[in-house]
Amino acid sequence: MSASVRVALDAMGGDKAPSETVLGAVQAAREYDMGVYLVGREDIIRAELAKHDTNGLDLPVVHTDEVIEMDEHPASAVRRKKNASMLLALQLVRDGAALGAVSAGNSGAMMAASLFTLKRIPGVERPALGGVFPTKVNACMVIDMGANTDCKPEYLQQFALMGSIYMERIFNVSSPRIGLLANGEEESKGNQQVVETHQLLKRSASTLGLNFIGNVEGRDIPGGTADVVVCDGFVGNVVLKLGEGLGEALLDLLRTEMTSSLVNKLAAAILKPGLRKVFKRLDYAEYGGVPLLGVNGSAIISHGRSNARAIKNALRVARQTSERGVAKAIGDGLSKLSAEV
Amino acid sequence: MSASVRVALDAMGGDKAPSETVLGAVQAAREYDMGVYLVGREDIIRAELAKHDTNGLDLPVVHTDEVIEMDEHPASAVRRKKNASMLLALQLVRDGAALGAVSAGNSGAMMAASLFTLKRIPGVERPALGGVFPTKVNACMVIDMGANTDCKPEYLQQFALMGSIYMERIFNVSSPRIGLLANGEEESKGNQQVVETHQLLKRSASTLGLNFIGNVEGRDIPGGTADVVVCDGFVGNVVLKLGEGLGEALLDLLRTEMTSSLVNKLAAAILKPGLRKVFKRLDYAEYGGVPLLGVNGSAIISHGRSNARAIKNALRVARQTSERGVAKAIGDGLSKLSAEV
Repeated sequence: MSASVRVALDAMGGDKAPSETVLGAVQAAREYDMGVYLVGREDIIRAELAKHDTNGLDLPVVHTDEVIEMDEHPASAVRRKKNASMLLALQLVRDGAALGAVSAGNSGAMMAASLFTLKRIPGVERPALGGVFPTKVNACMVIDMGANTDCKPEYLQQFALMGSIYMERIFNVSSPRIGLLANGEEESKGNQQVVETHQLLKRSASTLGLNFIGNVEGRDIPGGTADVVVCDGFVGNVVLKLGEGLGEALLDLLRTEMTSSLVNKLAAAILKPGLRKVFKRLDYAEYGGVPLLGVNGSAIISHGRSNARAIKNALRVARQTSERGVAKAIGDGLSKLSAEV
Repeated sequence: MSASVRVALDAMGGDKAPSETVLGAVQAAREYDMGVYLVGREDIIRAELAKHDTNGLDLPVVHTDEVIEMDEHPASAVRRKKNASMLLALQLVRDGAALGAVSAGNSGAMMAASLFTLKRIPGVERPALGGVFPTKVNACMVIDMGANTDCKPEYLQQFALMGSIYMERIFNVSSPRIGLLANGEEESKGNQQVVETHQLLKRSASTLGLNFIGNVEGRDIPGGTADVVVCDGFVGNVVLKLGEGLGEALLDLLRTEMTSSLVNKLAAAILKPGLRKVFKRLDYAEYGGVPLLGVNGSAIISHGRSNARAIKNALRVARQTSERGVAKAIGDGLSKLSAEV
């Protein structure tokens, strides 16, 4: 196993770390034939590793005592804890030892640390979080999902390019359909920011090689009519949280009804395999975390509640994001835009 | 039956008009002991009425040939069709013959027509649409749901007041909890508009008698932690459409699994009464349409797909909005604010 197929994992990050993070790494190492740097407190990580069969797996431990906690202020924690596990994981990427980094820890800190360590791709105005949602048909990336609250039209234009490249290379969508999130499909709809962005995307779509399908509405995200939905990070965060909350509330209601009597419980048991398929489709763990696009390298921010499967998938995505040249393609795309202007 | 308990219905408005609109009116007249003006083409309305037992019910028909179609441009349609059914319904409110008006027709036109006919309550900057969503616990009004895309903090402040009064008087919530929709709960979170609105609401809450609980996130809408969630109409529209789309997509997925085999169908049949309870909770038809708050009178915009039950509930809400003095309370609240300044 060569160092070139290793990914770095913040083994201490997330509500279920280190047990689920280490297990996810073990699973990824075996299933995807890749190496995983486990960054964090060596004794704790070794104790977790000892619980699993790691025979023949490439799971080097990189020790550090410092960990950024979930409730710390992102920017100041990153400044203060120079040896925090997520920072060391990102440094392995910067130094070429790892293809990408994954953390399920403090997501604001992971964002700040990625920006600080990997820097922006030349030409990128603002890196953005691209969250992948399940749809009726396949999957849809909503970008930005919370990195930038106030956005200029030029930022949104870049989000469109970054999302398109990601969905093409990681989700194998050819010529991804890019929609601009608005309050109506007509070109005239939207707030001032969106109306301007619409015109900008329309003008630059052919230069950037974007399949811009115009404005889309909230229902198009689950509806699967677009592969990438572009919005600012304020709206994207509302979309993310509402989606999670609605899914949970609806499943809660169903669960209550399905366990309200013995007969209902029996009926629910019969439906279980099918329902499990539905839940699996809705499970963020399947989608491998949220890439921070626009930084010079592969950085994946996983859900704080990530279980081993989520970590395993995030490690796979971190590797693919690097191997399939997402960052390079973003830089190339943006240079076309600046050549045009 | 006196004229003072009549509500005006645009009998021609909505995808299921006139059959479901007329039926909804018949049901409301019987169930709530109220009169309903049926505004539209008399022959068509009479033909529908003839299908039902209307004995003893107060269902006067107000004839007009003009109808605003779903795909017409709202403002120009309202200007051109001076005798459109929704306009005549609103004129009955303006002239004191009806307590309120309901239309499931072109919602943009109903909004423009309401503003044009009823005018704004003195002091109101922008009337807003208040949509009521089911929550885990009860119901939550999201305001504005699409009337105003670009909003100043002062508009959002007024939306908070209008939503609070509505939830208190129509949903009987005492001291409604007002949340400001943001990308995080901390006071510092939000885009520029939201950060400024937060301060404005904080300062004016006691003057306005608002129970302002601070920033809330998307998950708080289904979560039921706020009774009123304030946002601009761009974000509110995204929330509405995403909510509808997600609910539909999830139910589609469940339905597919539940009918995928004979055994599953049988199990689903056992669960049906319970599931129906869930679907009923999620059904917009239960919540009686969306009030346009801030106009001088009671105007309810119903979903284009409204069935008779949705129309019946909207007629009830239109009556209550008037009888419980929502518009007057909004005017009184705003005058407190201007007295303060």
